[in-house]
Amino acid sequence: MLLDKGLVMLGDTRTNAGFDNISCFSKLQKFHVPGERLMATLTAGNLAISQAVLNLVQDGLPDPETGNVETIYTVPTMFRAAALLSEAVRKVHRTHGEAMKQQDVSFDVSIMLGGQIAGRTLRLFHIYAAGNFIEATADTPYLQIGEHKYGKPMLDRAVTRDTSLIEGVKLALISMDSTLRSNLSVGMPLDLLVYQNDSIDGVVEQRINEGDKYFEMMRTEWSKGLTEAHTRIPPPDWLSP
Amino acid sequence: MLLDKGLVMLGDTRTNAGFDNISCFSKLQKFHVPGERLMATLTAGNLAISQAVLNLVQDGLPDPETGNVETIYTVPTMFRAAALLSEAVRKVHRTHGEAMKQQDVSFDVSIMLGGQIAGRTLRLFHIYAAGNFIEATADTPYLQIGEHKYGKPMLDRAVTRDTSLIEGVKLALISMDSTLRSNLSVGMPLDLLVYQNDSIDGVVEQRINEGDKYFEMMRTEWSKGLTEAHTRIPPPDWLSP
Repeated sequence: MLLDKGLVMLGDTRTNAGFDNISCFSKLQKFHVPGERLMATLTAGNLAISQAVLNLVQDGLPDPETGNVETIYTVPTMFRAAALLSEAVRKVHRTHGEAMKQQDVSFDVSIMLGGQIAGRTLRLFHIYAAGNFIEATADTPYLQIGEHKYGKPMLDRAVTRDTSLIEGVKLALISMDSTLRSNLSVGMPLDLLVYQNDSIDGVVEQRINEGDKYFEMMRTEWSKGLTEAHTRIPPPDWLSP
Repeated sequence: MLLDKGLVMLGDTRTNAGFDNISCFSKLQKFHVPGERLMATLTAGNLAISQAVLNLVQDGLPDPETGNVETIYTVPTMFRAAALLSEAVRKVHRTHGEAMKQQDVSFDVSIMLGGQIAGRTLRLFHIYAAGNFIEATADTPYLQIGEHKYGKPMLDRAVTRDTSLIEGVKLALISMDSTLRSNLSVGMPLDLLVYQNDSIDGVVEQRINEGDKYFEMMRTEWSKGLTEAHTRIPPPDWLSP
């Protein structure tokens, strides 16, 4: 979520190579240069691709125009950081795309990039498997990757650009809870990053493990609140009690 | 929804052959023999297939064991009605499946069948494109066909076998509202059928059009209730206000 007040990024940690081969890998990665930049990525899709892409943007790639090698720690703007991820996705495709295709493995990766370079605007991007990318705007202040459908209705109804960071965190967790309940390929623990606008060094990171007291309390309160909300709606007059 | 108290069936009316070719067709069909049986179907997928299937079960198909021609109005049990729909799906596949395949059109159809024959149990089935079918049980008192993901979390959290018919209707409408907001291929008006257990002749049918006062009120109240529900959840202690 890209809000007026800052950024909320939430990811699960489950990867699978079939129902009987499930592992735990963090999908949230932070890139921090104290006082200068704070960026973070979330990834979905093929783990080999996303790990390769994140290695490339840290090792560096030549700028297609200047030829200078740039990394995610040195690019001058968030737009250039998104373009660097795009370059990296295309490089991984050139390296592995054909061999994967021959084995009927789809080249499936989605990357979310959020962050701020000191003195510049906080921005949020979504980079697709083809390397093209979009940016979150005021009309749609949140982006989703991976299994997005179960968790979308709540975000649609409740998230606007002026949602507070605390409400944003609660809504992100509620949305993820809906997804956790419905798709076994999404699993705890969760990784959360909360970044307040213009606070390069003040980012909050939180891992939420199975049985986390706050998450459990939130689930219970949310269910209670929903029950109250639908019970309170009067019945239609075309239906006799 | 198959509840202790009865049956709630809700469908939209949008069919499309591409974004630029949208039409309105009811997907809810009732089969009523006064005093004797009340059944209803909901369909999703290819409209040509589902119309052909519904024609076949009304015109009649020979029972594979006895050779007697049966229709949805004459089959002795709900199980036989589901089997008749299954036979009809397979017959349509034999007639059109190969030609559709040659044109890269997938044989995509899902049918929900609910109802009761007087003196017997109220039952709910889901018939797949291959003709196989499942039945709703106490553990999972609702079934969905078509675009099911957006509307599922609310049903998962709130619907149990002892949910009342009125709450069931509200929850079905709330679930559909989430789907309407997120998928343009789902559209108003909605068709709703409410059947109280052992009331063969007392079924309630309601069409809910764009701008329907009850539906609009429900949307507003639901949004208000959700906002209250998440606002009321206390913030996590690892996040300063």
